[in-house]
Amino acid sequence: MTQDSTPATSYGVHSEVGRLRKVLVCAPGLAHRRLTPSNAGELLFDDVMWVENAQRDHADFVEKLTVRGVEVVELHDLLTQTMAIDTARNWLLDRKIVANEVGLGLIDGTRAFLESLDPRRLAEFLIGGLATTDLPEDYRTGYIALARESSGVREYLMPPLPNTLYTRDTTCWLYGGVTLNPLYWPARRDETLLMKAIYRFHPDFVGSTIWWGDPETEWGQSTFEGGDIMPVGNGVVLMGMSERTSRQAITQVAAALFERGAAEHVIVAGMPKLRAAMHLDTVFTFADRDVVTLYPKIMESVHTFSLRPSDKAPGLDITDEGSTPFTEVVARALGLPALRVIETGGDVYASERQQWDSGNNAVALEPGVVFTYDRNTQTNALLREAGIEVITIVGAELGRGRGGGHCMTCPLSRDPVQF
Amino acid sequence: MTQDSTPATSYGVHSEVGRLRKVLVCAPGLAHRRLTPSNAGELLFDDVMWVENAQRDHADFVEKLTVRGVEVVELHDLLTQTMAIDTARNWLLDRKIVANEVGLGLIDGTRAFLESLDPRRLAEFLIGGLATTDLPEDYRTGYIALARESSGVREYLMPPLPNTLYTRDTTCWLYGGVTLNPLYWPARRDETLLMKAIYRFHPDFVGSTIWWGDPETEWGQSTFEGGDIMPVGNGVVLMGMSERTSRQAITQVAAALFERGAAEHVIVAGMPKLRAAMHLDTVFTFADRDVVTLYPKIMESVHTFSLRPSDKAPGLDITDEGSTPFTEVVARALGLPALRVIETGGDVYASERQQWDSGNNAVALEPGVVFTYDRNTQTNALLREAGIEVITIVGAELGRGRGGGHCMTCPLSRDPVQF
Amino acid sequence: MTQDSTPATSYGVHSEVGRLRKVLVCAPGLAHRRLTPSNAGELLFDDVMWVENAQRDHADFVEKLTVRGVEVVELHDLLTQTMAIDTARNWLLDRKIVANEVGLGLIDGTRAFLESLDPRRLAEFLIGGLATTDLPEDYRTGYIALARESSGVREYLMPPLPNTLYTRDTTCWLYGGVTLNPLYWPARRDETLLMKAIYRFHPDFVGSTIWWGDPETEWGQSTFEGGDIMPVGNGVVLMGMSERTSRQAITQVAAALFERGAAEHVIVAGMPKLRAAMHLDTVFTFADRDVVTLYPKIMESVHTFSLRPSDKAPGLDITDEGSTPFTEVVARALGLPALRVIETGGDVYASERQQWDSGNNAVALEPGVVFTYDRNTQTNALLREAGIEVITIVGAELGRGRGGGHCMTCPLSRDPVQF
Amino acid sequence: MTQDSTPATSYGVHSEVGRLRKVLVCAPGLAHRRLTPSNAGELLFDDVMWVENAQRDHADFVEKLTVRGVEVVELHDLLTQTMAIDTARNWLLDRKIVANEVGLGLIDGTRAFLESLDPRRLAEFLIGGLATTDLPEDYRTGYIALARESSGVREYLMPPLPNTLYTRDTTCWLYGGVTLNPLYWPARRDETLLMKAIYRFHPDFVGSTIWWGDPETEWGQSTFEGGDIMPVGNGVVLMGMSERTSRQAITQVAAALFERGAAEHVIVAGMPKLRAAMHLDTVFTFADRDVVTLYPKIMESVHTFSLRPSDKAPGLDITDEGSTPFTEVVARALGLPALRVIETGGDVYASERQQWDSGNNAVALEPGVVFTYDRNTQTNALLREAGIEVITIVGAELGRGRGGGHCMTCPLSRDPVQF
Repeated sequence: MTQDSTPATSYGVHSEVGRLRKVLVCAPGLAHRRLTPSNAGELLFDDVMWVENAQRDHADFVEKLTVRGVEVVELHDLLTQTMAIDTARNWLLDRKIVANEVGLGLIDGTRAFLESLDPRRLAEFLIGGLATTDLPEDYRTGYIALARESSGVREYLMPPLPNTLYTRDTTCWLYGGVTLNPLYWPARRDETLLMKAIYRFHPDFVGSTIWWGDPETEWGQSTFEGGDIMPVGNGVVLMGMSERTSRQAITQVAAALFERGAAEHVIVAGMPKLRAAMHLDTVFTFADRDVVTLYPKIMESVHTFSLRPSDKAPGLDITDEGSTPFTEVVARALGLPALRVIETGGDVYASERQQWDSGNNAVALEPGVVFTYDRNTQTNALLREAGIEVITIVGAELGRGRGGGHCMTCPLSRDPVQF
Repeated sequence: MTQDSTPATSYGVHSEVGRLRKVLVCAPGLAHRRLTPSNAGELLFDDVMWVENAQRDHADFVEKLTVRGVEVVELHDLLTQTMAIDTARNWLLDRKIVANEVGLGLIDGTRAFLESLDPRRLAEFLIGGLATTDLPEDYRTGYIALARESSGVREYLMPPLPNTLYTRDTTCWLYGGVTLNPLYWPARRDETLLMKAIYRFHPDFVGSTIWWGDPETEWGQSTFEGGDIMPVGNGVVLMGMSERTSRQAITQVAAALFERGAAEHVIVAGMPKLRAAMHLDTVFTFADRDVVTLYPKIMESVHTFSLRPSDKAPGLDITDEGSTPFTEVVARALGLPALRVIETGGDVYASERQQWDSGNNAVALEPGVVFTYDRNTQTNALLREAGIEVITIVGAELGRGRGGGHCMTCPLSRDPVQF
Repeated sequence: MTQDSTPATSYGVHSEVGRLRKVLVCAPGLAHRRLTPSNAGELLFDDVMWVENAQRDHADFVEKLTVRGVEVVELHDLLTQTMAIDTARNWLLDRKIVANEVGLGLIDGTRAFLESLDPRRLAEFLIGGLATTDLPEDYRTGYIALARESSGVREYLMPPLPNTLYTRDTTCWLYGGVTLNPLYWPARRDETLLMKAIYRFHPDFVGSTIWWGDPETEWGQSTFEGGDIMPVGNGVVLMGMSERTSRQAITQVAAALFERGAAEHVIVAGMPKLRAAMHLDTVFTFADRDVVTLYPKIMESVHTFSLRPSDKAPGLDITDEGSTPFTEVVARALGLPALRVIETGGDVYASERQQWDSGNNAVALEPGVVFTYDRNTQTNALLREAGIEVITIVGAELGRGRGGGHCMTCPLSRDPVQF
Repeated sequence: MTQDSTPATSYGVHSEVGRLRKVLVCAPGLAHRRLTPSNAGELLFDDVMWVENAQRDHADFVEKLTVRGVEVVELHDLLTQTMAIDTARNWLLDRKIVANEVGLGLIDGTRAFLESLDPRRLAEFLIGGLATTDLPEDYRTGYIALARESSGVREYLMPPLPNTLYTRDTTCWLYGGVTLNPLYWPARRDETLLMKAIYRFHPDFVGSTIWWGDPETEWGQSTFEGGDIMPVGNGVVLMGMSERTSRQAITQVAAALFERGAAEHVIVAGMPKLRAAMHLDTVFTFADRDVVTLYPKIMESVHTFSLRPSDKAPGLDITDEGSTPFTEVVARALGLPALRVIETGGDVYASERQQWDSGNNAVALEPGVVFTYDRNTQTNALLREAGIEVITIVGAELGRGRGGGHCMTCPLSRDPVQF
């Protein structure tokens, strides 16, 4: 995990399946030790995990990526390196340790305690949250009792951020620049602030082109999550319009990309409302330049729109693709006769179960080589029959958060592919 | 409903039961016509209502207030008068009709349509929401189809705000000044922006003292709702710390009041976590200077704290009241030997039902005279036995939103009482 | 409410809209006083009610039926008259006051207390439930403490039966005989036992023809509720196949009717699974011999089957009606060219709301004359425009249980109509 | 897995921790292949499982039991052997393949198909359920289409019984006899019928003493699940009174045991209502003759009662143990000075998580040797520190059904211990 190999200015994600060169992940840790059956829902997890085993399985995933030549950077490491920079630490603590978050009467003690920590321990609390019990006696005041009587996440001095595990969502590299995404759930918003600190101060990230997004601004209905976004190449970006990614954000990002000449066509997948919570990458991912794995029960209800640059305000044109299937619109945009489709495997019970277990959430190492969870044996078999090399990740614990390999990776550098 | 009687500079709420002179309400309307069984939850309503009857019952409530000499102002009226002022209309539309809310491609048409409306119709849409189907054909673009495929409130061009019915929550007059409250649920946040437009531009409100709060600022964990707040007199303010009103906000407001000399003692009622969603005024209200009606099952679990001014940063001191009952702390602060307590009436079934039906949510006209819903016959009987005059509101429809007379009124001017 | 006019042997329901001559209803009462926000769900109610007003509105409904010449019998009255008969009282208490329901150690005291009551008070407890606190001190034993620590309905010695309000479901007259229905939810099963006591012992009901059903038998997956069942005339019976009414019961009842020559055609409406809880009469009822009111969003997804008598076992034949609309199959079976359809009124919001508020749950007094709730003003207006006389019931309280006039009436005698 | 070693007449469970000699388990299989995210809740599972891995981990558990000298019998095997007996197969199919379950029109085909199967395949469908798609074309009729339109479990011809995995609940050996339990959820009731077939016809089980229970009888509020029941020795039985195990059943079983002289003292643990769904063995199990592992947050709210034999009807006496802690009542009954208590390990987050992950659900091999899930490392460490030998089961998949080693085992023969 050296950071000197690829300068930020050369980061860029030019496809979904081209050679993956550098990727950002986040290991399970303190934040997941905070999960309990009663708070998991509020923190957007379906179940609790065995953290030690999740860490072991995540490390194995990282190892498999590394062995195949991918440079992997880890969020705790990046944040530690960032927090070692005085101006960065002050910048972030000035924004986190404030009356609106920590509460009056607890600011000075909390800040003093955090400043007393070494950068690694500080990074751990920034991601894992700071409970009232974590604050040593010397730093406490009478306001601690008030915090203990507070409900939900307000009992924390800094909230735990267990969804950092899904680095895919928080920022997305789209060709030569990145977006700093306003996430849908308030429980995840602080993730983007951590990423801004890294992009602003960490030497490997300084100078990156930011297309859109700023966690210090209020975005209203504009929310945008990387699980819905795929820069497939050929100047095309797929965007799932879901509960979490809104038309208000999609149109702004499209306009920003078009204005900078970074893309020529945004294909919007209008996800069916009944399953509004679902990211596009939970039901549709690429396994090769012309091969996708998808969950037909959802994908066949997608309503597709195309956005393209326009000379007139607001800088983009919209086409309603009507009854044309999403896969056909995508194939045409890539100059392919058609996409080869591998559906979720098994009978009606097994396919529903495998979609749920992230069976369609593949992430490609290079064309025709993907990572998926071991448990989706039937979908994996179909992928292999289609000639795809499938490398498996142990999903017993990691999969409990309802995200797979695609969700757990944020590519920083990926080659283009030819169509 | 003349606006010339009381100038804003003389507004002020100096008790919970002193003579009520002027009050803000909001009639049911278009926003409630948007409620359906499937969207009601997202809009924070438990059930749908028969809007015409709710309007009739609300008008009867207003009439009963007026007959007893209270000056009643209504939010649609106030907003209409505000929208008749060009600078006010522009100020508000500049903030509402933006890419983050309406979405690119729909801004110009939506703005043009809204500007074509007379002020009353515009006010109705600002409160009632603007559906895609409300936009006449001439103002539409291809982006309307994208909005129709969006989920939840994002299918609106402006969201409906049915909780304006509960004017109590959005702003609170605390003695001689007002707070513009950051509300807990995103679905209610735009209410405060409408109120800011009124306070900034409406001649009756210009010049009011604002203690705290600004809807154009991000407040993080600091959320504050009037249903939890009671300026009981004697320099004391009660604040329920609940799911909706956080310690982060309570301590800031207390500090602001102390700094301006507006209050000397804030009593914090730490609501039990199991019923975290509950405002203080759903389980505890005043009926006379020394008489309260309360729901014992909840109130006996309240953990009480006192905040008082301090010379040292952050300008306030905290006392944990330990096992002293909330009512005792309040009585002592008011210089009373004790509060006379009227519990929710009826057996174990009836009292739970009456609390649910806002049985403890009384609002006082003057000492010893309160408004409550007709349906809580047992609690009303107990109040009358205790010598309280009870004027009833028909709650068949209005009560379905789980708020009573206290929730539906925002006092602008109320006299002090002597203790 | 005399019982001597129509002998049971001449009871019979020969259509959905012919002259209604005698009907069974059940007034709100003690059972509804047991409802609280925390137990309502378990007792299948969405909200609590103001029992006194519900009683007033129910009495008004009864009065309107009586004034129009319908003989109305009320369940508490019938049960009182039945409990005045010693053998009937013993028969019922032998089945209710047993170890499996009351619990060992409480049987003797409970039985002794119930036997000490006059028949009206006994009937009230049989419907309203018997709480541990209802048992006078003299009749209690140490086992009362065990009951108080029990959860849910097990804290009762006899469970409350608030759904008796919906007399439609428990038994159905289909032409010249009746079914004693096994209801879906365990919370309702005792209702049918009360009805069996009446049919077995009450002089007005003795001798009725029972087509099918017996509450003393276990029915497994065979559950059947009157809200799904309509004897429309012409030898046809409509049966909604829903969460509550299963194919296992439908085919058995059809076979029983065919065997006795009581019907020639059962039309099965396969309700969409997504809204499985919905009875057919919540989305489809008759207003005149050829006029129906329906909620199109649900009815257009119905899959229709026909069952007809057969010489071969199991005595019936099935036809899958494929894509033919339900209303067309019904019209054809009745020898009508088509049904005139009145859809739920209002825009997309109002129609969803009115369906929810039982807007389609009309019950006919005679051809072209129906009772509906007052609150569904738009659907009522459409019915009136179509020439239907609409008599309204006040629904503010009664409607909170999600059932309208059709649900609250069990016709005992209704004339045929000509097609 | 030979069946000749211990004759049924010598089966008997005389303690919770004495040497385990013979035990009944049920391997994961077809029933778990039916689980999907949308039906899991109805089938009482919180999540879906990877069946192959669950099978591997279950086999490992069986292997570890066997290696330590326990004779393990498996439910599919037992049922296969039972179905090889003609009278047994006819007895069971006569009860399962009936109109109330399969539906008219499908009985003959279903029965014919099942009779065509070899005993093992038949046993697999009896436990795993029979979907409409499992019925070969030749055996189908037009009624299959009706079944496909049915909702929930009614689309099956025989329902899947995935909770057979928890053999503990369905029957319990209490000293020298067994109970055939009426289970709380309708979704589990057929399990007991399968067990009755085994006890009635399988040569190893014929002649067993049945204390109480018969799946062919209706039990009303009397429900009883083995997870709540512990024959701890010394003539004492612990019974958790929970949502699933009612006072109506507890008092009947106690009376039956007392009448036969099989026990002298039943200690009832009144579980707190807020967590009503919880079996006693999810929060309290024995690890040695005087050592228990428990979850204090729940156990400290238990209200304890004692039942003892009496000469007077109904044959038992009750004592309210008032504020005496449950563990103290138990210790005294066993003649011990006190129980050594090992609480769920870890901080407030970890202990809640480990209870959820069946951390307290230990099953003893012999005094001081228990099986638990590997994932509860902190609780396991505490057990080991206390001198308990802990053998771990892999819980990644098996644990998703919220049951551990205690739930998955039904002891048939276990030695007494000395106190």
